[in-house]
Amino acid sequence: MKVELISIGDELLIGQTINTNAAWLGQTLSNFGARITKTTTISDQAAEIISALNTVSNDTDCVIITGGLGPTNDDITKHTLAKHYGLALKMHQETLEHIEGYFKNRNRPMLESNRLQAMLPDGCRVLRNKNGTAAGMWINSGKQVIISLPGVPYEMKSIVEEELLPLLTNKYNPSALYYKTAHTQGIGESFLAEKIRDWEEALNADALQLAYLPSPGFVKLRINSYKGAADAEKINRYFKELEAIIPEALYGYEKETLAEVVAKLLVGQNLKIGTVESCTSGLLAHQLTTIPGASEYYQGSILSYSNALKTKMAGVDPNLIAQYGAVSQEVACAMAEGGREILEVDICVSTTGIAGPSGGTDEKPVGLVWIAIATKEKTRVKSFQFGDNRERNLTMTVAAALNFLRFELLPLT
Amino acid sequence: MKVELISIGDELLIGQTINTNAAWLGQTLSNFGARITKTTTISDQAAEIISALNTVSNDTDCVIITGGLGPTNDDITKHTLAKHYGLALKMHQETLEHIEGYFKNRNRPMLESNRLQAMLPDGCRVLRNKNGTAAGMWINSGKQVIISLPGVPYEMKSIVEEELLPLLTNKYNPSALYYKTAHTQGIGESFLAEKIRDWEEALNADALQLAYLPSPGFVKLRINSYKGAADAEKINRYFKELEAIIPEALYGYEKETLAEVVAKLLVGQNLKIGTVESCTSGLLAHQLTTIPGASEYYQGSILSYSNALKTKMAGVDPNLIAQYGAVSQEVACAMAEGGREILEVDICVSTTGIAGPSGGTDEKPVGLVWIAIATKEKTRVKSFQFGDNRERNLTMTVAAALNFLRFELLPLT
Repeated sequence: MKVELISIGDELLIGQTINTNAAWLGQTLSNFGARITKTTTISDQAAEIISALNTVSNDTDCVIITGGLGPTNDDITKHTLAKHYGLALKMHQETLEHIEGYFKNRNRPMLESNRLQAMLPDGCRVLRNKNGTAAGMWINSGKQVIISLPGVPYEMKSIVEEELLPLLTNKYNPSALYYKTAHTQGIGESFLAEKIRDWEEALNADALQLAYLPSPGFVKLRINSYKGAADAEKINRYFKELEAIIPEALYGYEKETLAEVVAKLLVGQNLKIGTVESCTSGLLAHQLTTIPGASEYYQGSILSYSNALKTKMAGVDPNLIAQYGAVSQEVACAMAEGGREILEVDICVSTTGIAGPSGGTDEKPVGLVWIAIATKEKTRVKSFQFGDNRERNLTMTVAAALNFLRFELLPLT
Repeated sequence: MKVELISIGDELLIGQTINTNAAWLGQTLSNFGARITKTTTISDQAAEIISALNTVSNDTDCVIITGGLGPTNDDITKHTLAKHYGLALKMHQETLEHIEGYFKNRNRPMLESNRLQAMLPDGCRVLRNKNGTAAGMWINSGKQVIISLPGVPYEMKSIVEEELLPLLTNKYNPSALYYKTAHTQGIGESFLAEKIRDWEEALNADALQLAYLPSPGFVKLRINSYKGAADAEKINRYFKELEAIIPEALYGYEKETLAEVVAKLLVGQNLKIGTVESCTSGLLAHQLTTIPGASEYYQGSILSYSNALKTKMAGVDPNLIAQYGAVSQEVACAMAEGGREILEVDICVSTTGIAGPSGGTDEKPVGLVWIAIATKEKTRVKSFQFGDNRERNLTMTVAAALNFLRFELLPLT
């Protein structure tokens, strides 16, 4: 079942509104087993709507249009569709009663423009909108189905879930697109591709597709199958293999975040954590507390931006700072070890680096970061060389610190 | 100047990634004076790319394609464009050197797949990508210009701002839409509209348009003029008037951030700042250090998530916590005052609240936050009631704290 989406609205074209409807429909319909082949966004003009309909591919089964069904003058989708498909507008009694009830329940006067919303193309199948006054429409056009939905997200979503999907199931009995996504941190896209080349080739030979989705510090790996959930076990097996190839990078699946994975490991081992941060200045602590119930494992942090506070608050020997500099292996370790005692935690992570844009030297360029993790038994420390963008260096540092922490917390197997 | 956008990527079609690139490009190019007539999202397949190019309207001046320029096998945009426009791929020396430098600076090995990213269509104009290895391309095709950009947002954005817009200005000299944006914090959109109604009416009567652009905690107010920079002074006058109407909310213009405004006030008065954070756990400190050179005014913070650390690190009397609870006016003040002494700063901001989703009571519901600001002379404290979304409550708390701080730092006039 192939689907094209058409989103109508100037606010989408000029970027005042981000097109989350298309993303939601894409996700919902993919999970349902449809294949989204194209989404098009156009302005609120009849000629544009007709032009978009005319460029729909012949092998598309279903076109879903969102937007332009409101009561005001700039809402023209319904009129345009009725004219294009040669259907007269006719008062739809059930919809009229729903609209009347809608206003009565809210003690608000009903305007003529609202009454006219119940005028619907004769012969279309009406998709009820329990959350608003703009009904959805199902129009058959040859082998294709044209669906028109309101653009207000929560109205659109409830029509899709309650009215549209059951009808589509009846008609198409779709075979599912099945996909699963793994998350990796700390290996660049091309280096990763190199590292997993044999694995990827085996995957492709097995009629599965791999997509790389990079973002700063991370690469998502998604395996697609058009054979539906039948391939689920096979895909799980491939991911299990991948875990053994890149254990230091692969940290989770689907909606799992790195912070969640770390939180689970901490809670599972009943460990309390704190941080001593210099360059990241709270961004790491914030990530650790994005999870509801973070107080179960997170105690607190020292943000020692100045050298004086590194000594006063985290107990770093000022001689170490004088000898090695604040951005050094030695100071990173001292921060984590000092913080662990002062914050009275089991594990303490420190960050110290040169976020930029200035402050770099030949020996210690902008983007150099040291991260240390102190536990009762040992202190581990690593250096990283990121780029020259301040904000991004901080994001990358936090991602690297969380993944370093995750790897340290993994039970030995 | 008419522009069509083509976004490439299965992750967009299946809704795994929301197409924020299209929104950003729509906004940036509209502001620049271009008109976006259509955006299309297609999958990573050559036939789809060619089909999308073939349905571009004849009167479109410029097509901007994003995505599919990475080093891995699923990145096919460059090859497809080269073939479609009959251009051979040729090593582009400057790009090669840039890629080599990119890896060298990061102490990372450069792979053959990265070297091949410097193979670009012969005859295209190269748009330099200082943030990554995938160069942008400008291809002339008859009267139309075809632009290909990487899909990674921050790479795409910097290429557009630094390389593409200057070239488009040279070529099309777009008729200027002149606009200026003011930033407000702390007043909801409809309440704000009510408060500035007379001012807005005067504006409209003067042939200027006002747009409200809300986001959590903030509303941007943009005045548009289609008469170009000729209206600049008039618009400035209106904004001056507005400053007097909502001084507590209006904090800056254009690209100014609230943190920048606060930083300027601190530096101007030679004040050192620190924070003692509970619910925000570093997010406020992070905001204060997003600005290069933050060490001029920012010293450090105590993140006392647990009550024990509120006492141990920030010197809060445990009896206060027992009597009033950690989320209270009294504890907020004690945190700010204690932090000011321990961190040895001139001014200290504290946050304590119930971020949610759980932990609320009838008396202290989820979303309740106390913020205090302690200086040598006095401590000021305020409470806020936000909503039930954890992440959003933290964002709103930081925005409110920074704006509270800004207003306290304003010189008396």
